[in-house]
Amino acid sequence: MAQKTALIVYAHQSPGSFNAAVRDVATQELVEQGYRVIVSDLYAMNFRANATQDDIIGDLKNPELFQYGDETMQAWMEGRLSDDIVAEQRKVQEAELIIFQFPLYWFSVPAIMKGWMDRVLTQGFAFSLQKMYNNGIFKDKKAMLSFTTGATQTMFRPDGINGDINVTLWPLQNGTLHFCGFQVFAPQIFWSPAHCPPTVRTAMLDGWRARLKGLLAEKPLTFAPCELFDLSFQGGFMLRPKAKEERESQPYGLTTGHHLGKPLPPDNQITAPSSGENSAN
Amino acid sequence: MAQKTALIVYAHQSPGSFNAAVRDVATQELVEQGYRVIVSDLYAMNFRANATQDDIIGDLKNPELFQYGDETMQAWMEGRLSDDIVAEQRKVQEAELIIFQFPLYWFSVPAIMKGWMDRVLTQGFAFSLQKMYNNGIFKDKKAMLSFTTGATQTMFRPDGINGDINVTLWPLQNGTLHFCGFQVFAPQIFWSPAHCPPTVRTAMLDGWRARLKGLLAEKPLTFAPCELFDLSFQGGFMLRPKAKEERESQPYGLTTGHHLGKPLPPDNQITAPSSGENSAN
Repeated sequence: MAQKTALIVYAHQSPGSFNAAVRDVATQELVEQGYRVIVSDLYAMNFRANATQDDIIGDLKNPELFQYGDETMQAWMEGRLSDDIVAEQRKVQEAELIIFQFPLYWFSVPAIMKGWMDRVLTQGFAFSLQKMYNNGIFKDKKAMLSFTTGATQTMFRPDGINGDINVTLWPLQNGTLHFCGFQVFAPQIFWSPAHCPPTVRTAMLDGWRARLKGLLAEKPLTFAPCELFDLSFQGGFMLRPKAKEERESQPYGLTTGHHLGKPLPPDNQITAPSSGENSAN
Repeated sequence: MAQKTALIVYAHQSPGSFNAAVRDVATQELVEQGYRVIVSDLYAMNFRANATQDDIIGDLKNPELFQYGDETMQAWMEGRLSDDIVAEQRKVQEAELIIFQFPLYWFSVPAIMKGWMDRVLTQGFAFSLQKMYNNGIFKDKKAMLSFTTGATQTMFRPDGINGDINVTLWPLQNGTLHFCGFQVFAPQIFWSPAHCPPTVRTAMLDGWRARLKGLLAEKPLTFAPCELFDLSFQGGFMLRPKAKEERESQPYGLTTGHHLGKPLPPDNQITAPSSGENSAN
């Protein structure tokens, strides 16, 4: 049997950071499970975040009106994407599991990691209009977000000042990862590690290691499957009437697909296994 | 009376793009209203998106463990941020209105614009633990998102395949702009302009011009005010019990702050003035 591959897309500037320790725990644990682990250390690679013409080798399809999505799709088909993009796409292709490891910047990934998503997840390679969400190109792969916050856990409760963390993660978990087909595991959230004592940080890393042992057996997050929607321009890609009726009577949470329904009570919303009480960047 | 200033933070690679046309309409219209208009053309400036040590002039506070947020806050206090950040911060300071103009990439801003947010909105300059949300530093300024999509409008309805556009925009509108205190106008959304005939695109630009004439008279989006929360670590920055009870009985939509409550019916959720039926990148 061929060796399994995991990719960790990692974005922290400092080798001494808590994010680096989290990455190292994942690497060790996955290697013990028999994985080959590849790390894309974005800052160390000086990964370029900006989506520009430099991403395309050779002539542009439409030099007068540069449309990044169109040009990169064409370049992907013809093998004319820049070397750094091709290298990352090869890693994605080989990996059965991708972990994104980062500190939360402005309720999202740092720009360098957003640049990885913008540039690597090219149309054709990562999605098409026929292949998206649960029918997506990467539907046999798993992905997850693992990140540190400055905020405490209560701030990101549905009744906390920042609102439900699942709302904040929707563009990443549904709009990006699940859109490309990935089965998305519940996020691993390290709450405010910079404000925790070393013993708590150690406990958080232990919790992470323990979770990784059973990770592949976890049930991925549930999203509304494509089949519930009328996938045509006439139908507007909206819920079919029967599905709409059914969903309106069900409780919803963003982890179960937020398309209508009644909100779950606050304490049921965060379904990720706990990663320790509190934690540091 | 001193002249008012508007800042357009603009992220498209091509001067021939629909985004460029949208930017030009805003510039013309705001100049007619007496504004001085500054445009930060991020790709033309080759704006650096990655948050690195290069953003700090002089010695680091903690070179062994580089923490971007801590270091840039310190550098801001001591006037040691890099010139490109200082230049953008000066524009923000001068502007009463900021418009972010971009094509939606992966349910969010392009990485180059995320980099602008990560790097320019430094702690101390743009927020502090005492000054956030409706008590935020920029509470006398207005901001808004103006963007083009690949998706059609129905795809981003609450019952559309991508889910409610307001959920997608929450990290930007609430987590970033409102967090810094900005009063946030409803987003200007140009739905799928690349797939529209020229006449429709022209109508969209006319709609934008018409909206701009009355923009400053619009009521900004409503978010749950800080006063409803117990802003202490003991209180967990969560809704006060009385506020929680009140809000649970009210209808909610993400544009009215998504902290609990009952969802609004789908057709009431998108409160932005319509920008034409359909439209192109």
